[in-house]
Amino acid sequence: MKLVCAQSDLSTNLSLVSRAVPSRPTHPVLSNVLLQADAQTNQVSLTAFDLSLGIRTSFNAEVWQGGAIALPAKLLVDITSRLPEGEITLDDESAPQGETSTGEGLTVTLTPKNGHYQVRAMSAEEFPELPIIENAETIQLTAAALIEGLRGSLFATSGDETKQVLTGVHLTVKQDTLEFAATDGHRLAVVETINERPLSSSSELEVTVPNKALRELERMLAHHSLSDESVALSFDQGQVIFAWQNQRLTSRTLEGQYPTYRQLIPRQFERQVTLDRRQFLSTLERIAVLADQKNNIVKLTIDSAAQEITLSCEAQEMGSGRESISAQISGQDIEIAFNVKYLMEGLKALPASEIQMHLNQNLTPVIFTPLSGLKMTYLAMPVQLRN
Amino acid sequence: MKLVCAQSDLSTNLSLVSRAVPSRPTHPVLSNVLLQADAQTNQVSLTAFDLSLGIRTSFNAEVWQGGAIALPAKLLVDITSRLPEGEITLDDESAPQGETSTGEGLTVTLTPKNGHYQVRAMSAEEFPELPIIENAETIQLTAAALIEGLRGSLFATSGDETKQVLTGVHLTVKQDTLEFAATDGHRLAVVETINERPLSSSSELEVTVPNKALRELERMLAHHSLSDESVALSFDQGQVIFAWQNQRLTSRTLEGQYPTYRQLIPRQFERQVTLDRRQFLSTLERIAVLADQKNNIVKLTIDSAAQEITLSCEAQEMGSGRESISAQISGQDIEIAFNVKYLMEGLKALPASEIQMHLNQNLTPVIFTPLSGLKMTYLAMPVQLRN
Repeated sequence: MKLVCAQSDLSTNLSLVSRAVPSRPTHPVLSNVLLQADAQTNQVSLTAFDLSLGIRTSFNAEVWQGGAIALPAKLLVDITSRLPEGEITLDDESAPQGETSTGEGLTVTLTPKNGHYQVRAMSAEEFPELPIIENAETIQLTAAALIEGLRGSLFATSGDETKQVLTGVHLTVKQDTLEFAATDGHRLAVVETINERPLSSSSELEVTVPNKALRELERMLAHHSLSDESVALSFDQGQVIFAWQNQRLTSRTLEGQYPTYRQLIPRQFERQVTLDRRQFLSTLERIAVLADQKNNIVKLTIDSAAQEITLSCEAQEMGSGRESISAQISGQDIEIAFNVKYLMEGLKALPASEIQMHLNQNLTPVIFTPLSGLKMTYLAMPVQLRN
Repeated sequence: MKLVCAQSDLSTNLSLVSRAVPSRPTHPVLSNVLLQADAQTNQVSLTAFDLSLGIRTSFNAEVWQGGAIALPAKLLVDITSRLPEGEITLDDESAPQGETSTGEGLTVTLTPKNGHYQVRAMSAEEFPELPIIENAETIQLTAAALIEGLRGSLFATSGDETKQVLTGVHLTVKQDTLEFAATDGHRLAVVETINERPLSSSSELEVTVPNKALRELERMLAHHSLSDESVALSFDQGQVIFAWQNQRLTSRTLEGQYPTYRQLIPRQFERQVTLDRRQFLSTLERIAVLADQKNNIVKLTIDSAAQEITLSCEAQEMGSGRESISAQISGQDIEIAFNVKYLMEGLKALPASEIQMHLNQNLTPVIFTPLSGLKMTYLAMPVQLRN
């Protein structure tokens, strides 16, 4: 294998795929990036795979001699990212022409201008194959819809690995809508976006994808401002693949029944409050300083006569705080308490300048929605106030 | 005590002094900031003190009623930094007019617009006095000279608390020069700057100040771009005080004999190398990736015929690297090895685009100096190369 490529191409693509390199690999080869060079197409592809999440990306290069080899990810990222702009030659001297490199004592030579680096490599044959899905229906989504859906749902997944399906986002592809749902058992976020590329079949498709893989997907899509781009989604037997342009992300799916979350969302409400999202959020951030000292609970006092919400917190040993903000309130006065972190996280994700709170009683689910724009529903459970 | 001040003044000054609040206070009162309000001068001063480092700063406010109180630093910083711009009223209701607050159940009320925060406070009398130096000679320094000296020396102090005086910078004030020296036993940095405000007496003064205090001093001086400002330095009996404008930093000094570092610096050299600092540094950063994998040792091969230095590293299990850079070389060829971290740290601090290496043999001290500008000397000990 021998090729010449731009430092920037090699460095950018290496750091992209290296996010799928496990920090504690279960097998030495997994700490590598698989490099495949094709002399016919002059394309180089890089692959990293932690056996759950896989990322593959490719770029143009001058491939003098095709081949494949596994290279230590961290070392290569660290060296190439520090090299100056310019051409780099990658050369795997030990392999016979056109053949995949095998055997012991394998090295790759990296030759930037005035420099010469030799890196211990591994045989490409040891590197596990990325899952491939054949004959599954492929759905075309817009990157913009995917990004919107992930922004409004990912934060609400559980960080606790024992929570199984709750560590993922549940994606439902309907005829012309896409629904993203996430819950950790304490709150629920649901985003409904338009799928501008309707399905060919009429069947609904459902899949739960681990948050780790989706965070990488969000990062990759956001990074390249691909809003208009089409992303192909295919899934089958525990695997899901997102593919666009010259990149692809594969992930195992989460097995098990996802909660029937729709039935948790009340349909009728006794009270409604409209207020400024940023003001609500910044006030909560101050009250959270005191709530942090204790049990993270903030009290909301909704006063319809004054058209005002008062946020307050008592942290007995440390002090207390309260602030009022004006709001449009319909329905009777009520006192209700929340975990301040769940409120703040939801408010950060709601994509609107004004939001609505929909309430019934002080211990029944409360719904937050944007006043206009994206169709998002955020459900938070109130907590009991003990005095 | 009662006062009205701007949110920005309170927040900025709180976060400034709070750097002297210990993270694990040995006494509860040390986690507080002492607030003193003077109704005559309409000045508010804030003080934090970890019994070694003390920071005091003051700002203008409308003081309705003077007094002093100790307030929980972290809580107050966190709340005030999140408040919107505008006036804040601070009120300590429990104290009789004009008197310092004492006793249990002390609280301070913080009243921003639409809000009301109550914070549990402590009596000002519990807060330890900042050291004061009376009758000691005060030296006037320019902030610019101090900043230059600290930038070129602080990095070379030891991070190991058991190393006593080596954890500080040794400052020598002569008739019209200021000398900063720091060493951790492996390398030495000496900066000589001009003291534009000569001493009144002819005696030399010497003091060793802990790096922690000097890092705060550097940050405070750099933050306000005070280059032209005069900083008053006084010291006595284990204490040093830096004071300028409305700020002051006090620190204990480090006791014990500082190494007689001047005699470590050779006066004559057999070899001299002039080279581009940035190019040398960025090449070292790449070679360091491989050196990191092993013992951090980089080899320099100085070739006077080619007028070239080659940097190389062998990390047997991982790979190897070498790069060459052009240099002006006088003297015979030599191979010499260093800990790559000591080289990089010195090169980062040297304030010049071109630098000179002065060498004798491959195991004698090597001196690095800037080709022009500030008078700085960096000494690094070579290490033995084992093949």
